[in-house]
Amino acid sequence: MRIAVDAMGGDNAPRDIVAGAIQATEQLPDLERIYLVGRQAEIEAVCQELGKPRPAKIEIVDASEVVGMDESPATAIRRKKDSSVGRAVALVKDGQAQALFTAGNTGAAVAATTLKLRTLEGIARPAIATVMPTKLKPFVLIDAGANTDCTARQLAEFAVMGSVYSQEILGIDNPTVGLLSIGGEATKGNEATKEAYALLQKMPLNFKGNVEGHDLYEGATDVVVCDGFVGNVVLKTSESAAHAISHWLKEEFTRNPIRILGALLLKRAIGQIKQKGDPSVYGGAPLLGVNGICIIGHGSSSPFAVFNGVRVACESVSHDINGKIIELRKAGLTSPETEA
Amino acid sequence: MRIAVDAMGGDNAPRDIVAGAIQATEQLPDLERIYLVGRQAEIEAVCQELGKPRPAKIEIVDASEVVGMDESPATAIRRKKDSSVGRAVALVKDGQAQALFTAGNTGAAVAATTLKLRTLEGIARPAIATVMPTKLKPFVLIDAGANTDCTARQLAEFAVMGSVYSQEILGIDNPTVGLLSIGGEATKGNEATKEAYALLQKMPLNFKGNVEGHDLYEGATDVVVCDGFVGNVVLKTSESAAHAISHWLKEEFTRNPIRILGALLLKRAIGQIKQKGDPSVYGGAPLLGVNGICIIGHGSSSPFAVFNGVRVACESVSHDINGKIIELRKAGLTSPETEA
Repeated sequence: MRIAVDAMGGDNAPRDIVAGAIQATEQLPDLERIYLVGRQAEIEAVCQELGKPRPAKIEIVDASEVVGMDESPATAIRRKKDSSVGRAVALVKDGQAQALFTAGNTGAAVAATTLKLRTLEGIARPAIATVMPTKLKPFVLIDAGANTDCTARQLAEFAVMGSVYSQEILGIDNPTVGLLSIGGEATKGNEATKEAYALLQKMPLNFKGNVEGHDLYEGATDVVVCDGFVGNVVLKTSESAAHAISHWLKEEFTRNPIRILGALLLKRAIGQIKQKGDPSVYGGAPLLGVNGICIIGHGSSSPFAVFNGVRVACESVSHDINGKIIELRKAGLTSPETEA
Repeated sequence: MRIAVDAMGGDNAPRDIVAGAIQATEQLPDLERIYLVGRQAEIEAVCQELGKPRPAKIEIVDASEVVGMDESPATAIRRKKDSSVGRAVALVKDGQAQALFTAGNTGAAVAATTLKLRTLEGIARPAIATVMPTKLKPFVLIDAGANTDCTARQLAEFAVMGSVYSQEILGIDNPTVGLLSIGGEATKGNEATKEAYALLQKMPLNFKGNVEGHDLYEGATDVVVCDGFVGNVVLKTSESAAHAISHWLKEEFTRNPIRILGALLLKRAIGQIKQKGDPSVYGGAPLLGVNGICIIGHGSSSPFAVFNGVRVACESVSHDINGKIIELRKAGLTSPETEA
């Protein structure tokens, strides 16, 4: 495998990105080459700082510009011709790399890949898939934020992409698919979800009908489909609720000496619970539906998260997820050209 | 005040509803009369069972039918002419009662009030407002589930209704209003929210721009506006996340004797945290925008929740929230007739 890594994207870039990339070259036998894309001098300085000679499998590709986390994606990609994320995407387009990983500005990654790689045959828009923990087993939420105002057809495409990802990368056999709505019946939902329900029923998917917010962390289905506005709200609201509960726990658990003693006895337990919600083990969120493989890491990606992101990128290549998405899409949805 | 109470709606009806209504007559001095609407014999049996003589302020209004929690709202309201919720709404329409409280089928309450009472002047659709806890202070989420596919104009109407409720019932002076979206900038969101942003900026509200899922439980604004699809997902996802965390806490806290001891020392603390998320203190969710006052309780309303629902119904009458909604709407939005 040959993977391009945006060395400059993320809150702790390039340090943690480089560290994770080095770890990947050490532990992933299938990995032939990592292209570390970014400011050569900075990347080399980090290698020195880490006290490790640059592994032979790592090649630095110089890119002089960086897209900031708060920059407007479309403008940044248009203006910064030599950005690290743009150059990483170009490596995939040229076939030099087979996939890319970035922990930088998500919007910029979506814009650059959509612009340069275009979408897969019969897929209108790429979508972000995120793996979420539940009481039992993780599920794939798609779209987690790439598209607002989706049509029923687009939601159906997301279901195809999420199914393939769940099957190939999470190893779930014949994954169940739920459509996020506000009631169990086919008649409950907004215009797009009601129409999507009818479409999904006819497709070769293990479609289980609507799921509600209530069901999400019960592990109701392996894939949960929604538009990117709703997906973004779900992700961020869940994080916010978890933060509030954690805040209340801390507040109440430190109110008097007896409680402080109790909390001390539970210190390890609390740490283990926090880990359950830790996204770094799943290796970031793939942007599915683009003609190439792009894994997007959390802005605060640790070296371990970067390592996992590179691992998932390799697996996505070896499992040919894009070929399988095209295949399953063809089996379930007419091509847009035929429709028009 | 004269309040109609749907005695048959809710998981623990009529018992907990009657108990809450009796408590209200004992503790709310402004309350002249409660019409307990439902099957007379059952209600009288509950009064006996509770060991209390029926207070003079309570009058039973016989209604032979009950809308079940899982019935299709529109069909149920059309077919069951003598339903308790329908009769309670009719009491408000006739002016015999000034407000109603129901813990029954939410959709049926929305359908019955919209059909019989119609909406306030210049308000296209009624919306459910729910009071949610945060780290600091509660906020009003509107719409929590009455409408999907809302226009920008409707979102702006929700902002007006939520502001009035926050000011009059929660006592927040000049409440801040946020529009739930997926980024802080005015250009972030879906078509409806982007258009609503522009509308809200021009209105006499304390509009603070977009809020994100992240901000919700930080107490970013006093009112958070969204369509009912998103609002329903936010509510139910938050509950689901809280359940999952509670499940993990229980699992980890009982894993060995030392942890069990720790958990015992924290038992009261954990109980206090659970209370923070308890919606019963806020007295249910008002359905705002109908030409009458309707407070909708949670299906599992306890007597205390019913008492609080009746209290909020009385306050909504005495503060003339509907008059104030009409006034603020006129100050901020043209009447739909002028527009057309």
